[in-house]
Amino acid sequence: MKTQETDARISALRETMKSNGIDAMIIPQTDPHQGEYLAEHWQVRRWLSGFTGSAGDLVVTRNEAFIWADSRYWLQSAQQLSGTCIGVMEDGKPATPSIPEWLCATIPAGSTVGIDGMVFSVTAAEQLSSRLAASGISLNTDFSPIDLIWTDRPSLPKAKAFIHEEKYSGESASSKISRILENVKAAGAESVFISDLAEIAWTLNLRSSDVECNPVVTSFLLLTPRQSTLFIDPDKLTPEISGYLTDCNVTTLPYSETEAALSRLPEDLSVLVSASQTGITLRSVLGKRAIVGSSPVALMKAVKNPVQLDGIREAMIRDGIALVRSFMEIEKRMAEATPTTEIDVADILRRHRSAHPLFFDLSFDTIAGFGPHGAIVHYSATDESNMTLSPDNLLLVDSGANYIDGTTDITRTISLGTPTDQQKHDFTLVMKGHIAIARAIFPEGTRGAQIDVLARQNLWNEGLSYLHGTGHGVGHFLNVHEGPQSIRLNDTLAPLLPGMVTSNEPGLYREEKYGIRCENLILTQPGFSTEFGNFFSFETLTLFPFDLSLFDTSIMTDAEIEWVNTYHRLVREKLLPGLDHAAAQWLTEKTRELTR
Amino acid sequence: MKTQETDARISALRETMKSNGIDAMIIPQTDPHQGEYLAEHWQVRRWLSGFTGSAGDLVVTRNEAFIWADSRYWLQSAQQLSGTCIGVMEDGKPATPSIPEWLCATIPAGSTVGIDGMVFSVTAAEQLSSRLAASGISLNTDFSPIDLIWTDRPSLPKAKAFIHEEKYSGESASSKISRILENVKAAGAESVFISDLAEIAWTLNLRSSDVECNPVVTSFLLLTPRQSTLFIDPDKLTPEISGYLTDCNVTTLPYSETEAALSRLPEDLSVLVSASQTGITLRSVLGKRAIVGSSPVALMKAVKNPVQLDGIREAMIRDGIALVRSFMEIEKRMAEATPTTEIDVADILRRHRSAHPLFFDLSFDTIAGFGPHGAIVHYSATDESNMTLSPDNLLLVDSGANYIDGTTDITRTISLGTPTDQQKHDFTLVMKGHIAIARAIFPEGTRGAQIDVLARQNLWNEGLSYLHGTGHGVGHFLNVHEGPQSIRLNDTLAPLLPGMVTSNEPGLYREEKYGIRCENLILTQPGFSTEFGNFFSFETLTLFPFDLSLFDTSIMTDAEIEWVNTYHRLVREKLLPGLDHAAAQWLTEKTRELTR
Repeated sequence: MKTQETDARISALRETMKSNGIDAMIIPQTDPHQGEYLAEHWQVRRWLSGFTGSAGDLVVTRNEAFIWADSRYWLQSAQQLSGTCIGVMEDGKPATPSIPEWLCATIPAGSTVGIDGMVFSVTAAEQLSSRLAASGISLNTDFSPIDLIWTDRPSLPKAKAFIHEEKYSGESASSKISRILENVKAAGAESVFISDLAEIAWTLNLRSSDVECNPVVTSFLLLTPRQSTLFIDPDKLTPEISGYLTDCNVTTLPYSETEAALSRLPEDLSVLVSASQTGITLRSVLGKRAIVGSSPVALMKAVKNPVQLDGIREAMIRDGIALVRSFMEIEKRMAEATPTTEIDVADILRRHRSAHPLFFDLSFDTIAGFGPHGAIVHYSATDESNMTLSPDNLLLVDSGANYIDGTTDITRTISLGTPTDQQKHDFTLVMKGHIAIARAIFPEGTRGAQIDVLARQNLWNEGLSYLHGTGHGVGHFLNVHEGPQSIRLNDTLAPLLPGMVTSNEPGLYREEKYGIRCENLILTQPGFSTEFGNFFSFETLTLFPFDLSLFDTSIMTDAEIEWVNTYHRLVREKLLPGLDHAAAQWLTEKTRELTR
Repeated sequence: MKTQETDARISALRETMKSNGIDAMIIPQTDPHQGEYLAEHWQVRRWLSGFTGSAGDLVVTRNEAFIWADSRYWLQSAQQLSGTCIGVMEDGKPATPSIPEWLCATIPAGSTVGIDGMVFSVTAAEQLSSRLAASGISLNTDFSPIDLIWTDRPSLPKAKAFIHEEKYSGESASSKISRILENVKAAGAESVFISDLAEIAWTLNLRSSDVECNPVVTSFLLLTPRQSTLFIDPDKLTPEISGYLTDCNVTTLPYSETEAALSRLPEDLSVLVSASQTGITLRSVLGKRAIVGSSPVALMKAVKNPVQLDGIREAMIRDGIALVRSFMEIEKRMAEATPTTEIDVADILRRHRSAHPLFFDLSFDTIAGFGPHGAIVHYSATDESNMTLSPDNLLLVDSGANYIDGTTDITRTISLGTPTDQQKHDFTLVMKGHIAIARAIFPEGTRGAQIDVLARQNLWNEGLSYLHGTGHGVGHFLNVHEGPQSIRLNDTLAPLLPGMVTSNEPGLYREEKYGIRCENLILTQPGFSTEFGNFFSFETLTLFPFDLSLFDTSIMTDAEIEWVNTYHRLVREKLLPGLDHAAAQWLTEKTRELTR
């Protein structure tokens, strides 16, 4: 995208601001479902700015514009916004103001900030409003000028929905609806309005391909004890789906009628809405009916049932085998000096994964970052950036697939030649953190933020750090990022419960040199009980070796070395039966014993 | 206190509830300043229930009554409430409902819960109200029947206030007021109403003896750019104090006129009030003037200036010397078989500490718990419970003093004879956690909750735990517990900043056997900077040896052993110059090298 195009779009936006008495507008990187990954229709911030990152809000005043980019995107946003009228705020640095702080310091009292209340959650809008009010700035939650200036805006997703069979999901939609309504009742409400697309997909055992890599179905869902309603574009329905929904006691109404239908609900119906997921506009329409709280579905969805876990374990074996074939191929090409680029790496991985009949899509765009590109945390190779691999540096590959029976997400960092001492030292520090999480034992009730430091302490001791989370929840044939649990610097207050699948992915990024990240998915499982309570631990689910050439055993404890060897024995045991002779030999060599 | 007396008082309370249409009342363990330690006048929960713990709210319905006791007080509350009509809710256990949860499940929709809005913060009252409303229960914040039934209620504290000289505090009251008002302005307000007694004492460099062990001055403080007002009982003033306040541009009004005076403030004056510290009653009186946020004073008070730190370091040497003399005396008595009780231990410590001219008071009631009493986390020996020490178990001593130039708080656990292997193993696990905190290195912005697990991980690995915090902030000649920082399971969102003094006190409690706690105070200090940012570390301030007979070096790393030896060398270096020959010999022996 050309920089003039960006500047023209920002100018057009400023014209609409001017004519509506708006002094600043915030364009969040989300949709009416508070999604992280968005259908084209809602890529408003991308269209306006040209910045393609998956996070980062845009703020436009009458004469300034900035994107608040988190650490993953500091480099990328600076590159993509270079030459435009939009600057970068490096969010997460102590000196960087928050958006409200910056607005209060920048625009005068008496000004008005505009937002589209469909894409701003209740919590976000209320916090913003009260912070601005303290500086005498008003908030207009009804400012949505984008359709006027984005004249060729893509339509809403039209792909058909399909059923995620119970043999994979492990529980019927009717059973889930009953359980949800029990929880809703316990929270003091009769009904619940669900905005989150993954929650709706999970509840109804429905999937579609509305968002790249996220098999969700664009819709809103109102569950009540008598009759439930799915707000969905009629184009997305088939006779089979309509019949299926009727059997689940769910009627349908067009997506575009959500707001109007909510306004017609009985005045005495109490409706639980999620403060963090529901747009302030819809919450306002519900008026006194709304009980603002949190959705019970996120937690229910996060705790996987035995059928889902069986599927995930199968998917891990299949994914591990695809990775063995992929990395063998990459290694062979390097040995033969066949030019191989970052995009080739992504293509090779996709080819081997997609060969399986249960493969549906990638679970996110593959990150294959060679050398300095590995230090760009959410790097995605483009035709311009695409580098050819060479034996003198590290390759970081973060990738995953959505199989019908489970979702994978794995990062491996490998040396393509002889690693330097610093590379080995850095890799081993990251692995010490990875192993500390994998081996952690913790009491019932422990939240991910409490154990996060175990992944970081060895880095901190040497003045090193990484700013992204150590772990995120992972869906089941659904979004690769899900809550409520996480393992990160900031607390999400959600305990790690048995059945939750979370990533374990510490990293270290040497700007312009290389990046290191080591990621497996881990399952919280019941451990043992003592007079002090119940203690939980993790089972590592992902199955693929770490690069043995990168370990510096001189800074590892015996227990850490033993963990690597035990893990590699497990990888061999699980993957060997699915491999041909050459691949089995390759894996056996890659999982040989690590010794001092 | 007899059980019949408790039951009669609860009955009298129920009569007032009945005649006022109140179905349940919550009596929090606090005062109008949201204090933790209370003057006699506000010991309402203690007077009603007979339970003497420093925390734990009482809930009385028409036919039930419970105290929500935290883990420190599970044992003590059960003992003290035995035989009364009041039961114990073991707060902190996963199965224990919160007070609102319990109320919603116990009293029907349409009921009314009563609270005294002077002793319920804005946050607490609003959260309670919205939670109750979801179950159709109303909240009456204006129910204060205690004066009617507590006919001999003690008066408010009458002790005179006195000035904490600038040579100790390091900054004048005028300078502090200016800095506070700058921060208030940055938060979007003109003035600030301060309820917290320690914040007022710190701001004005005033002290008194209103609360046992907490040298605070009962008052409210309104700071405005033109003129500030201290609401204080005139009995507490002297001509010197009145003149001093005038010099600081602070007028006085009687404490009892606070509410009326706030209601008369100019309608357009914006007043910052702390949501967590200000009573809902006073916030309501302020009406639209109130900007509900957080007090800037807590953070300013927590960061000690160089004069305060010099004083604290002096106080630590003095306190360490008093402890050497105390523990020598206890050891001598044990050797001579002179009967020595827990109360004797507390008396010995007080005698040696109070010998110094800068001693003002203890900073909290000494906890001297022998054997099973050590397992009662906030044990305080009474004439009935008082045990005589014997050589067959551990003694836990948690104690501290308020010196004019600094506050101390130290816990040591010693073996009075030959420790068992389990005692040594347990002690060493606790020390491994203590050492991990003491040695921690962490980036700027890190909160205590993030590093808390370092103190716990070795215990968790073996299915052990403790439920209290690992560390609390410590005042300067002020309350031994202060915020905003802490090191604990629950996040307080306050980063650990250079200049903050925090305790480091992991523990382990074997019910009916013994308790172990190891506590030093630690100072956050700037460490070093790298391309990844600024890193901080801790300096240990407290100076007294740990019991070498309790270490099991077989489960310690070389670095942990070296930490103990380095710490003991520091203790020797700092304390020896103040000791006579015999004491110097004793300390040299107690700080001999720890080897495998």
